Amino acid sequence: MRVLGIDCGSERTGYGVIDSDGNAHRMVAAGVIRTSPKWPFERRLLEIAGGLRGLLREYAPECAAVEEVFHSANAKTALKLAHVRGVALLSIADAGVVLAEYSPLEVKMSVVGYGRAEKVQVQMMVRSLLQLPEAVASEDAADALAIAICHATHESTSRRLAREIR
Amino acid sequence: MRVLGIDCGSERTGYGVIDSDGNAHRMVAAGVIRTSPKWPFERRLLEIAGGLRGLLREYAPECAAVEEVFHSANAKTALKLAHVRGVALLSIADAGVVLAEYSPLEVKMSVVGYGRAEKVQVQMMVRSLLQLPEAVASEDAADALAIAICHATHESTSRRLAREIR
Repeated sequence: MRVLGIDCGSERTGYGVIDSDGNAHRMVAAGVIRTSPKWPFERRLLEIAGGLRGLLREYAPECAAVEEVFHSANAKTALKLAHVRGVALLSIADAGVVLAEYSPLEVKMSVVGYGRAEKVQVQMMVRSLLQLPEAVASEDAADALAIAICHATHESTSRRLAREIR
Repeated sequence: MRVLGIDCGSERTGYGVIDSDGNAHRMVAAGVIRTSPKWPFERRLLEIAGGLRGLLREYAPECAAVEEVFHSANAKTALKLAHVRGVALLSIADAGVVLAEYSPLEVKMSVVGYGRAEKVQVQMMVRSLLQLPEAVASEDAADALAIAICHATHESTSRRLAREIR
């Protein structure tokens, strides 16, 4: 199963593509779509949409996974993020790719086994789970890979349970 | 000047197109892009994006005006709205159309002359300003026309001031 994980952000949107059988995961690509804070917001959204469209076309994932957004202490930041997330969901739907959504807690629990894990712990576990020679440099790309791993693990568990129930 | 006003909403996105010389405004089109609450959210975003793309192509406005979104009492509603707004800003930028943003207060002040105007007052003033035989049936379409009128008036005032300063 090929999964695209997306870590939305108006300045940096991380992405990570993995191939997975549910237990073993292999990194296919990871990186960041960057936009300039000097650009008008709508141009940044256009850049992010263009980047995601390119990734969805190039890597043709079966599924794209995105984190849920919550009302946070900083309401303005959450609202900005929701704009970017809207553009991400649109790009995924437009490509006809299945969308999966997880809370930040679920992603950390799935990858680190601890819901309050720090970013550096996520980076370390992503490196270990993907058997990479070194940690993914960008936190945003590592987060996106973590989201993809979370989905792959979740899907595999669901399928196994479905088999056992039958 | 041709202006497209957009009143974002995940169930109903109102739109209104006007031609204006800054003083007199003429309605070109108005309506609502509807989505079903039964659809997954990403499909609703896709429907709204498709609808806006069609309007931008058909009416070729010089400018598209959208209301700003604020952190409201209902944070969940504001976050949902911000997703739709992200899709609207993207559609506008993608069409190469100039974006203008106004607060709900500015729109009401501009159209009714009173920032706390009720929806029905906005509908009445929109009817009067556009010299329509009857009120626009949909509140969302009327709101979108109000946003368009707000921008047309604002632009005209800015241009007049610029001329007088020269």
